[in-house]
Amino acid sequence: MARQYWRPSNMLYPVPPVMISCADEDGKSNIMTAAWAGTICSDPVMVSVSIRPERYSHGIISRTREFVINLTTQELARAADFCGVRSGREVDKFALLHLTKLPSRRVKAPSIGESPVCLECVVEKIEKLGTHDLFIARVVQVSVDERYLDEKGRFALEDAGLVAYVHGAYLSLGKKLGTFGFSVRKKRGGRKK
Amino acid sequence: MARQYWRPSNMLYPVPPVMISCADEDGKSNIMTAAWAGTICSDPVMVSVSIRPERYSHGIISRTREFVINLTTQELARAADFCGVRSGREVDKFALLHLTKLPSRRVKAPSIGESPVCLECVVEKIEKLGTHDLFIARVVQVSVDERYLDEKGRFALEDAGLVAYVHGAYLSLGKKLGTFGFSVRKKRGGRKK
Repeated sequence: MARQYWRPSNMLYPVPPVMISCADEDGKSNIMTAAWAGTICSDPVMVSVSIRPERYSHGIISRTREFVINLTTQELARAADFCGVRSGREVDKFALLHLTKLPSRRVKAPSIGESPVCLECVVEKIEKLGTHDLFIARVVQVSVDERYLDEKGRFALEDAGLVAYVHGAYLSLGKKLGTFGFSVRKKRGGRKK
Repeated sequence: MARQYWRPSNMLYPVPPVMISCADEDGKSNIMTAAWAGTICSDPVMVSVSIRPERYSHGIISRTREFVINLTTQELARAADFCGVRSGREVDKFALLHLTKLPSRRVKAPSIGESPVCLECVVEKIEKLGTHDLFIARVVQVSVDERYLDEKGRFALEDAGLVAYVHGAYLSLGKKLGTFGFSVRKKRGGRKK
């Protein structure tokens, strides 16, 4: 197990390449993709998204203090990539990508109808870090596509075809290795074989 | 595309079930697993990890202001799960799980030798949020397992067998769907078919 030592670099993976939707004061909407995003608190439910100040959505979200996190599926992977490389200053991404602009319940930012899970968020704090500003936000509403509810009413998120981002690549998710707590449910739990 | 509207819940996935290693003032080490973790800034390279105050590592990291993020592979999935459900107050996880306690370069917290990528981190700020405290940290050193360097010297992180966490399940990563920018490199880039 020989190791190499490197200068600090962005190597924490897999991360979620989520599509962030927002709308400005005139109702003009945009979508940007961010992979520096995640849950930061279970209760209250809070998330963070890091956004470069030069991005078009940065100004909108800083002013409106609202956005929606839309989870990315394999079907949405190409659209998600496009929303990560093209600016809303130049193109109307909802229109160009034929995405459904779904009104949200608790925020003015629209949701993306094709996403299996949309998290409506209200910004609580913005921390300037360097290349990115950290938007700390409260999730105020969740909407899900009924298509993924099974006969028992359980939401089968593992069947939604979510996408992970690893060091420049979009990857599908593979097989289930276990569920939380599986290491101690087995007879010789926790011991590596 | 009928939707259901839910109260706020933790639905931002996939996230990285990383193993966080630390050591107290007497050199006693521990490993905890956290899925509320991610990159928050590209330059300087910064990460965040959310930790419940009642966890054993919370006290250690709050005092020492150092930890290491170790990426989890399929081979480490059972150990990672164990480190998420058992407390270091009761067990020596490095010993019990036969994990290699690798000295780190820039922090006193040890790295996990079996992890393909270890990020040595120094805490810059702790934000109290609710159930979790958000540890905002600077990555000060990266170490990687040479095994994943290909003949051109490129680090093939996609071959390391990383694990994703989705709503209570550990999943392997699947096939590559594209690389960053693929939607605009194609002839009909960005347009959904």
